[in-house]
Amino acid sequence: MGWLPDETGLDRCAANHVALTPLSHLRRAADIFAERTAVVYGQTRRSYLDYYGRVSRLASGLAAHGIKPGDVVATLLPNVPAQAEAHFGVPACGAILNTINTRLDTDTVAYIFEHGSARVVLCDSACIGLAEDAIKAMQGPAPQIVEIADEEAGIEASGHYLTYEALLEQGDPAADWVMPEDEWESIALNYTSGTTGRPKGVVYHHRGAYLATMGNAISWRMVLYPVYLTIVPLFHCNGWCHTWMVPMMGGTLVCCRDITARNIYDAIADEGVTHFGGAPIVLNSLINAPESDRRSFDHIVEVFTAGAPPPAATLAAIEPLGFNVTQVYGLTEVYGPATECTWKPEWDDIQGDERAALKARTGVLMPMMEEAVVHDSHGEPVARDGAHLGEIAMRGNAVMKGYYKNPEATRAAFKGGYFRSGDIAFQHPDGYIKITDRAKDIIISGGENVSSVEVEDVLARHPAVSLCAVVAKPDEKWGEVPCAFVELKPEAEATEEELIAFARARLAGFKTPKKIVFSDLPKTSTGKIQKFELRAVAKLL
Amino acid sequence: MGWLPDETGLDRCAANHVALTPLSHLRRAADIFAERTAVVYGQTRRSYLDYYGRVSRLASGLAAHGIKPGDVVATLLPNVPAQAEAHFGVPACGAILNTINTRLDTDTVAYIFEHGSARVVLCDSACIGLAEDAIKAMQGPAPQIVEIADEEAGIEASGHYLTYEALLEQGDPAADWVMPEDEWESIALNYTSGTTGRPKGVVYHHRGAYLATMGNAISWRMVLYPVYLTIVPLFHCNGWCHTWMVPMMGGTLVCCRDITARNIYDAIADEGVTHFGGAPIVLNSLINAPESDRRSFDHIVEVFTAGAPPPAATLAAIEPLGFNVTQVYGLTEVYGPATECTWKPEWDDIQGDERAALKARTGVLMPMMEEAVVHDSHGEPVARDGAHLGEIAMRGNAVMKGYYKNPEATRAAFKGGYFRSGDIAFQHPDGYIKITDRAKDIIISGGENVSSVEVEDVLARHPAVSLCAVVAKPDEKWGEVPCAFVELKPEAEATEEELIAFARARLAGFKTPKKIVFSDLPKTSTGKIQKFELRAVAKLL
Repeated sequence: MGWLPDETGLDRCAANHVALTPLSHLRRAADIFAERTAVVYGQTRRSYLDYYGRVSRLASGLAAHGIKPGDVVATLLPNVPAQAEAHFGVPACGAILNTINTRLDTDTVAYIFEHGSARVVLCDSACIGLAEDAIKAMQGPAPQIVEIADEEAGIEASGHYLTYEALLEQGDPAADWVMPEDEWESIALNYTSGTTGRPKGVVYHHRGAYLATMGNAISWRMVLYPVYLTIVPLFHCNGWCHTWMVPMMGGTLVCCRDITARNIYDAIADEGVTHFGGAPIVLNSLINAPESDRRSFDHIVEVFTAGAPPPAATLAAIEPLGFNVTQVYGLTEVYGPATECTWKPEWDDIQGDERAALKARTGVLMPMMEEAVVHDSHGEPVARDGAHLGEIAMRGNAVMKGYYKNPEATRAAFKGGYFRSGDIAFQHPDGYIKITDRAKDIIISGGENVSSVEVEDVLARHPAVSLCAVVAKPDEKWGEVPCAFVELKPEAEATEEELIAFARARLAGFKTPKKIVFSDLPKTSTGKIQKFELRAVAKLL
Repeated sequence: MGWLPDETGLDRCAANHVALTPLSHLRRAADIFAERTAVVYGQTRRSYLDYYGRVSRLASGLAAHGIKPGDVVATLLPNVPAQAEAHFGVPACGAILNTINTRLDTDTVAYIFEHGSARVVLCDSACIGLAEDAIKAMQGPAPQIVEIADEEAGIEASGHYLTYEALLEQGDPAADWVMPEDEWESIALNYTSGTTGRPKGVVYHHRGAYLATMGNAISWRMVLYPVYLTIVPLFHCNGWCHTWMVPMMGGTLVCCRDITARNIYDAIADEGVTHFGGAPIVLNSLINAPESDRRSFDHIVEVFTAGAPPPAATLAAIEPLGFNVTQVYGLTEVYGPATECTWKPEWDDIQGDERAALKARTGVLMPMMEEAVVHDSHGEPVARDGAHLGEIAMRGNAVMKGYYKNPEATRAAFKGGYFRSGDIAFQHPDGYIKITDRAKDIIISGGENVSSVEVEDVLARHPAVSLCAVVAKPDEKWGEVPCAFVELKPEAEATEEELIAFARARLAGFKTPKKIVFSDLPKTSTGKIQKFELRAVAKLL
């Protein structure tokens, strides 16, 4: 190992070793970017000095209400400034931030309150009913509700609870922060929106959150002073860690409560938004927005999309509007994005389907991670031939500590020294990974694996198709057959026979869907299609 | 502290914790940027795959020659590809890289060989004489010489030693690397070019080198695929860690053996150089280059300068040529730059002297560091009033482990939990630090502190002055008085009386130089003016 023969006096000390934590970014920003605009929400604009002061008030206010280091503080909040403040203020009193998806059902929120033992929940006025119902349904000590009204959205406080602003009033804008002594201390607890069974509590360490901010900034080609729009919910992998990243860059965080095309266009035109992340469905909403919701702008907006590869038609339609779309891939367990379809300059002139195929790649390792590889069932890397399938396995410093109070699931997820994603992929000869399916989305028809994504890609090219999802339908003869659920574009028409014929002309017979269902697709709050619901429907067909 | 009530199963493991090391950047680059150009030197162009293969050969070749983890491997090399390869290949066999300044005297090199106990020295053919003389002069076991000829420069091997290419031939391009198990392991040993006494051996840890690469990339507004020209010697704070950084960005490292204006212009025009770092003297050489050495280019080159603030006249002359100049500040002890005069967009329209004054600021903390502050003699922060002087104190993760085999000097340098820079500065109200003097450069005249930099700034504005340096001259009446050494521009003329009058019109009487000496200024290999020599001359006047 790289130890000199004499290391006397060369130990870690206060001068040369500080626990890595994203809290450092906001402290530095308050110092060196003091007067720059940190947070924008409607008419609200706050400088870094203000932001820091409010965060310090929150941390000391929580402490005054009995929150101790190691306690869990939950939030039920849309992308409003309080949610960003909680990302710093909760860990700044030594507590662990548990952002809860505001669109979950009562039972699941009750489960999360119970399992995480939240002491306080910072709750948007629009979510008070959900919080109250969950508290009624839960066992054990309930979290104290601190209510956040939203003047910008015209939402008033219920009057029944301590308000967030009152809590801040009790705090001290110059309070000392509780900084981690060990960068392995916990900073966040994020429950996966598991589609089966109880959600699992993913625990983040300060070190990973810090390194994710640096790796994301570099990989995303961000330069100083970005204007970042919050489209990815901050309760989803802490908004891919971007709330923690923006102060490092002296950037401006533009909060967006309601994710609509109009709000996005307005933020771009009025605030000069340079970057945002969102599911492909957000891209479609921008493309399909009525003229009255659009605004013109003269810069290129960098958009990072995840959850599904952007379809060729989406790319072809959105790029001329002034958006550069890059696909990233990750999971809650790896702090959001861990691979990116890093664009190569030599691809610049490639157009059409070939360009879309390149942009649809899952990509390559981001700089804060150590390895992303496709493993066969023996844990060996598959050949990089663009054909052999395996499971994406990752390791590195932006991987969770594990699942809270579930060491068995943690052990299974980390089998062999890698985080096992459950996602099925191949690797191109140049190393770019391409997901073919979430493990549970593979359709096995007559013993052949059918990639649902491949079938979806073909159907999406049909001019009448707006969105589609393909799942397995049980079949007596073949075991399973592909079944497609399709949303058509407004005023477009297509028949089942027409779409099946379209697919058959482009796919092997066993991959061609045997059934097409026209319906609205059920989506999660982050825009992911909920295939488990479609699978349930397909079983009954 | 931020530990959840139940942390069972949430420990560090192979999946979620990897020792931070810049070695990871090249491994990743070889994987995801395999075919991109990694290193350019004259007609030599190598891809990341080649670069990685040669580094692996170096690591395994050194191991085959008996180098073990913890051994020291020295280099006496200009900025040629072998020096870059050594930055990865030496630590990749677990050894510690000791890059030695090629312009040191025999005695000092002998001292470094002895003190560092280098087992091998990778030595440029032009430095063989120096290495041989130092080996003759030293006590104890001498390093084995591995000679590096330079075909591109027409320099042939002496024939007396194992050559670098022969060593690489013996290595294995697919050899496993020795990765650090603990990120606190040592990666480099850099002797400060102390102007008095024996040089001290600054020890770098892998963690700091890794974090410096990330912080520099972000602070320097680098986006993917930079083309980085090596002007700062790689033996100077490991070239500010940039050899380690470039692979993280998929960039190209352009090696430059002889730092001349012609070579810099050629590299910009021929290789599309986007970034380099260098002392202000390099900027002057670009400005004063004859027409025949200049090349045209149509992009802006980002230049980072350190060692002294860029004079107003230099800035005014160089910016129209296509260079954007940013001042950074640091020392060997903090891995090179630790603060940067981060530009504010609201300054864009400011011109002339006011612009130069802004660009002459020492700046603010870079993102990988935790704190940079100006302390009074009691270790308390001075008022941020642009007037109170104190010493720059820094702490954070890009601070050295300490001085090798010198725990006493380490303790003194880290007094009170900060690295004590010895540099005197004030802080502007917006937090920007401004160095007034290296501690030893302060002139005390009649009990008043005179900032030599302030006097130099005034003299540099005189149209005939090319370079100047002000030091203390002993004086019976005043104790010390300012004495200026001046290099005039080619064919320019000025008298001592004229320059003194020019200064007196702009400075307080006690700050005005009492003596002007016209002469060439002695410089270190990195372009810093060697004031200790001038002080010796001033004493004799």
